[in-house]
Amino acid sequence: MGIHRENGRLFIRIFNSNTLTNILANLKAAANMVDDPVLLVKSALSDVEPDRFKFIDGFPVIKKALGWVIFDCTCRKGENISVVELSPVRGKINRRLIKPVNRGFNAVIEAAIHATRYVGLKEEEYLRQIEYCNTIVQKCGGAREKEAMKLMYELIGYKEIQ
Amino acid sequence: MGIHRENGRLFIRIFNSNTLTNILANLKAAANMVDDPVLLVKSALSDVEPDRFKFIDGFPVIKKALGWVIFDCTCRKGENISVVELSPVRGKINRRLIKPVNRGFNAVIEAAIHATRYVGLKEEEYLRQIEYCNTIVQKCGGAREKEAMKLMYELIGYKEIQ
Repeated sequence: MGIHRENGRLFIRIFNSNTLTNILANLKAAANMVDDPVLLVKSALSDVEPDRFKFIDGFPVIKKALGWVIFDCTCRKGENISVVELSPVRGKINRRLIKPVNRGFNAVIEAAIHATRYVGLKEEEYLRQIEYCNTIVQKCGGAREKEAMKLMYELIGYKEIQ
Repeated sequence: MGIHRENGRLFIRIFNSNTLTNILANLKAAANMVDDPVLLVKSALSDVEPDRFKFIDGFPVIKKALGWVIFDCTCRKGENISVVELSPVRGKINRRLIKPVNRGFNAVIEAAIHATRYVGLKEEEYLRQIEYCNTIVQKCGGAREKEAMKLMYELIGYKEIQ
């Protein structure tokens, strides 16, 4: 989920979802910065296994994240979409990396976004977009990116044609 | 330019170009890892200003790069495309960052690739792809990504419609 910064304040825009329900119930959220494409796909399209989390002040963060930030949340609820302001209360950097651009990795992210829409709306156009991203993954990605695409196709119930 | 790793060996595939001519003449190349979208666009579509380089063993690298590696090169010349094997001889990490995924930044990269093809082939389809990337940049990118897109439109001689 993308965090927007405007004049030094942090916001997310979020559709009605379990995530929003959780935020409204707890008024807390964590942002985990991760660089594993398989984990990204899993968190976008299914549930991340409980043993991948550890608890900080009773709040779950991902153990293998590059870093995380826990926020206090203020919500402006909308009919379909709500705006949540995020105020950082605690954060940790686990690892700093030098990471060259990887078009394959980036294509997994774009495909995952199309996949969440495909799951909701079942429109063929999203499959076409996922297939396009997959051609980039197969050309530019490493083993982990290819594994992420395989998992994505499984999670959206689509038999990959290759 | 993407570097591929196969069984621990590093390769680039490269079309006939000034870059290939330079590599064949010197049998050396440098990979600069950069995270500034404006600099990426500039290096893809025009020349980076000389004062942005410093010299390491007589070889230019980008001062503001996150890091760089200088390679000895072995070329297998092809008619249109050549394969260059890269053997690292010296490298430096200047900065390690924790960098969350930014779809806007990633979209600048994809757009720059379409732009290099548009400049060569002048096919409208590439403009359409650049425009699609630009919608992501305008939605998800920061000021630097938007500036990079503006520069890209200038460098390809296309009047952006917004």
